[in-house]
Amino acid sequence: MSTIEALESMFNPKSIAVLGVPRVSKDGDWHGMFAEIKTFGYPGRLYPINPKATEINGIKAYPNLTALPEKVDLVVFSIPAHAVPAALLDCSTSGCKNVHIFTSGFKETGEPEGLKLQKEIEEIARRENLNVVGPNCMGFYVPKNKLSTMGNTPKKSGPVAFISQSGGFIEDFTMYSSKFGIYFSKAISFGNALTLDSTDFLEYLAQDDDTEIITMYLEGVKNGAKLKTLAKEINSEKPVIILKGGLTESGSRAVATHTGSLAGQKKMWDAFFRQTGVVRADSLEDMAHTLQSFLYLKGSAGSNVAVIGMGGGVGVAAADACSRAGLHLPALSTHAQSRLREFIEAAGNMTKNPIDAGAVFDNVDELEKTFDILNQEPQIDAFIISLHMDWYSGSGKENDVEELADTITSSLPDILKGKPLVVSWRSYGQGDDVKKLVAILESRLRGGGIPVFEGLDRAAKSLSNWVRYQNDKERLALRS
Amino acid sequence: MSTIEALESMFNPKSIAVLGVPRVSKDGDWHGMFAEIKTFGYPGRLYPINPKATEINGIKAYPNLTALPEKVDLVVFSIPAHAVPAALLDCSTSGCKNVHIFTSGFKETGEPEGLKLQKEIEEIARRENLNVVGPNCMGFYVPKNKLSTMGNTPKKSGPVAFISQSGGFIEDFTMYSSKFGIYFSKAISFGNALTLDSTDFLEYLAQDDDTEIITMYLEGVKNGAKLKTLAKEINSEKPVIILKGGLTESGSRAVATHTGSLAGQKKMWDAFFRQTGVVRADSLEDMAHTLQSFLYLKGSAGSNVAVIGMGGGVGVAAADACSRAGLHLPALSTHAQSRLREFIEAAGNMTKNPIDAGAVFDNVDELEKTFDILNQEPQIDAFIISLHMDWYSGSGKENDVEELADTITSSLPDILKGKPLVVSWRSYGQGDDVKKLVAILESRLRGGGIPVFEGLDRAAKSLSNWVRYQNDKERLALRS
Repeated sequence: MSTIEALESMFNPKSIAVLGVPRVSKDGDWHGMFAEIKTFGYPGRLYPINPKATEINGIKAYPNLTALPEKVDLVVFSIPAHAVPAALLDCSTSGCKNVHIFTSGFKETGEPEGLKLQKEIEEIARRENLNVVGPNCMGFYVPKNKLSTMGNTPKKSGPVAFISQSGGFIEDFTMYSSKFGIYFSKAISFGNALTLDSTDFLEYLAQDDDTEIITMYLEGVKNGAKLKTLAKEINSEKPVIILKGGLTESGSRAVATHTGSLAGQKKMWDAFFRQTGVVRADSLEDMAHTLQSFLYLKGSAGSNVAVIGMGGGVGVAAADACSRAGLHLPALSTHAQSRLREFIEAAGNMTKNPIDAGAVFDNVDELEKTFDILNQEPQIDAFIISLHMDWYSGSGKENDVEELADTITSSLPDILKGKPLVVSWRSYGQGDDVKKLVAILESRLRGGGIPVFEGLDRAAKSLSNWVRYQNDKERLALRS
Repeated sequence: MSTIEALESMFNPKSIAVLGVPRVSKDGDWHGMFAEIKTFGYPGRLYPINPKATEINGIKAYPNLTALPEKVDLVVFSIPAHAVPAALLDCSTSGCKNVHIFTSGFKETGEPEGLKLQKEIEEIARRENLNVVGPNCMGFYVPKNKLSTMGNTPKKSGPVAFISQSGGFIEDFTMYSSKFGIYFSKAISFGNALTLDSTDFLEYLAQDDDTEIITMYLEGVKNGAKLKTLAKEINSEKPVIILKGGLTESGSRAVATHTGSLAGQKKMWDAFFRQTGVVRADSLEDMAHTLQSFLYLKGSAGSNVAVIGMGGGVGVAAADACSRAGLHLPALSTHAQSRLREFIEAAGNMTKNPIDAGAVFDNVDELEKTFDILNQEPQIDAFIISLHMDWYSGSGKENDVEELADTITSSLPDILKGKPLVVSWRSYGQGDDVKKLVAILESRLRGGGIPVFEGLDRAAKSLSNWVRYQNDKERLALRS
């Protein structure tokens, strides 16, 4: 069985056995890994294993894997660390080759007992040709198959995959992303990477039809050269976005304690990103914001943007934020400026770039005219709208926000003829009014395929990551 | 009249005249600047000026300042730009020396007419010894005196002052800060800085008893050397925190369009911050987060922190975030580690620094014991608690959160004997449950004097800014 075949079977299991299901449950509920899988709605055959029970909560239990009526596609270990070696031998004897070890207490502890145990189970796994995810990890999340070995994850599926060396991050990242309408094909947490490492999952996801974008949280990598070759190749077809943890001195020490990995040098990883064109995320949140541009924007664009907003100080902040994110705000031609000045007063407004002209947002015609003028400027590649939602606060403003969202989603894309447009909003007020208006704005814009962000920093960073990806892809293709 | 006396009179006006109050109001409501001042509840004498009206909405109106029964402490201009020169002459004739020009359409337009007008009014103001705030600015916010010339500002007073070259930023910053229980003594927006510049306000606030901390948003400065000398001197008594806009190429061009200022070089401003010890903020939000540490923390501390949290991946992210913010996570002594290991299992936890041990947060004794052990480590200067509020989600968890907050505010400060402690929380869930728990946590912690932040990045940056301020103050005092 190839690694890809093994993973195909583990991601789409017809049957799962769980080792370490408590024999007695006081409240009649299931607990631990068995409960997670059952509660998420796994529809396949699910076997509890407990050597001291013949039945748990009315379901037949088995003493070991050999006693099962079939070879299961996935065995989940939720047993004490010292019991793992014997259980791996049971996997081998029973012919169940695919294992997820949730159990921790191995190399990551840094303590002699844990180090010794990890060495022992690695020898068994290699000798017996077992495919092991973990130990010290949360495992699988495949919403399409109603499979999740972790609690707090959305039910809905989507085109993004996530390979993570932190299980908590799978819950955090999938929940956070769902706020932006972003859902997942598969996520996998692989902890100490006993036999299967990030590169194995990457190869699998490259050929997985349900996956369009691959995100990763990495602490350490066993075979850096292999990751580089693979990531570069796959990234040219499917965008790969990586959050690398532990690139500071304190972070690197934390990585050793968390998954017993070597974090690697910052310089080496800088080169990795430069040479592969893989997109670099700075945090889990940054990775989710970046996904919005990758999912919604089409084609490609350069890094010269026009910012159209309301507020002068915030126009300056917008320009600074774009610059910091690697975007540029070219000046408009005097022709464009004088055309804008036909309907935008000089006093209290800015008509160069950024454009600060609150009034055009109250007037569909003027907003369309503004974009028409800007779109005729050949030096502008992309557009950011910056809204201040406190200006819309007060009940009865729903219609204004809906009308604005309709203009942005329906007529502006026609005017821009394929040039990318993203929207950012800010609000410092604390009323429920504004929250309601923001919810309307976000759902209308995303429904119409326009990425929308809280704060211009996020919008600029997301757009810039997408622009850089397109450019790097071109640059690397030319070179190879 | 000295500048400080003029500002004293403008910040505490017994009477105000507003130029440019619309003669006819269809709805019987007040509009514009007059309405802002009236609505906020200004209790002094307030005169509408309109050459074509003897009465507006039942209030006696005056044709000009000379017709007023008194010399007012503040004249507010809300008239077209071309009418400003004559109105300034009326100020002079009537003996009303203190002026706030809300009107825009001057130097900031970059257009010949605006440039000429600004030159003209500058000549008049200087010749007639007028104290002018503006033009092109929102003016005054003094909640103690129920005075605000801008709409969306909190009623409550506090110890922070804000000098801003953007009026919108005063609304944004005071509203945003109020989320964290931070309120203001005075805020002033001064636009194009015709006669009164940031340095004048700084000098005034240095001697203002209601102000403990001074924040500034600057685009350009007329007299850089004066700002440097003043800021350095004042900063040693009252912390000065500055957000400098326009330090990127695009931002610098935006500054010229917004307030007609020269933004200055990044290198020059880097030197300014280094040589004055003034705290640098990266955004309005960053400035508000920074204020929390300055308002709540006492004494001083070094930059070596211990992070105590729940979650392994997030422990790595915490370490990276601290490093990026300029904090360090020193390793714990083996003695401290083995004492922690007496009640924190090796498997699934981290006991080096960061500490990842979810279970201790469920057990008051263990949490106290953890802090007692950490506080005996001489290399640790400060503490960050990192909470995952999704772990508390579900109704009925209010008691757990209240108990945790009580432990953090009551027993931990006793254990830490003055060493600073800040708390960060994160939540990716979307339920109202969690929002309610976060509200309980935040209000209890702030009520108990503990700064609390959404996200470890903010906590680390705020703490680091405070630590750096204390250290710079010491460094600069030694040198001088």
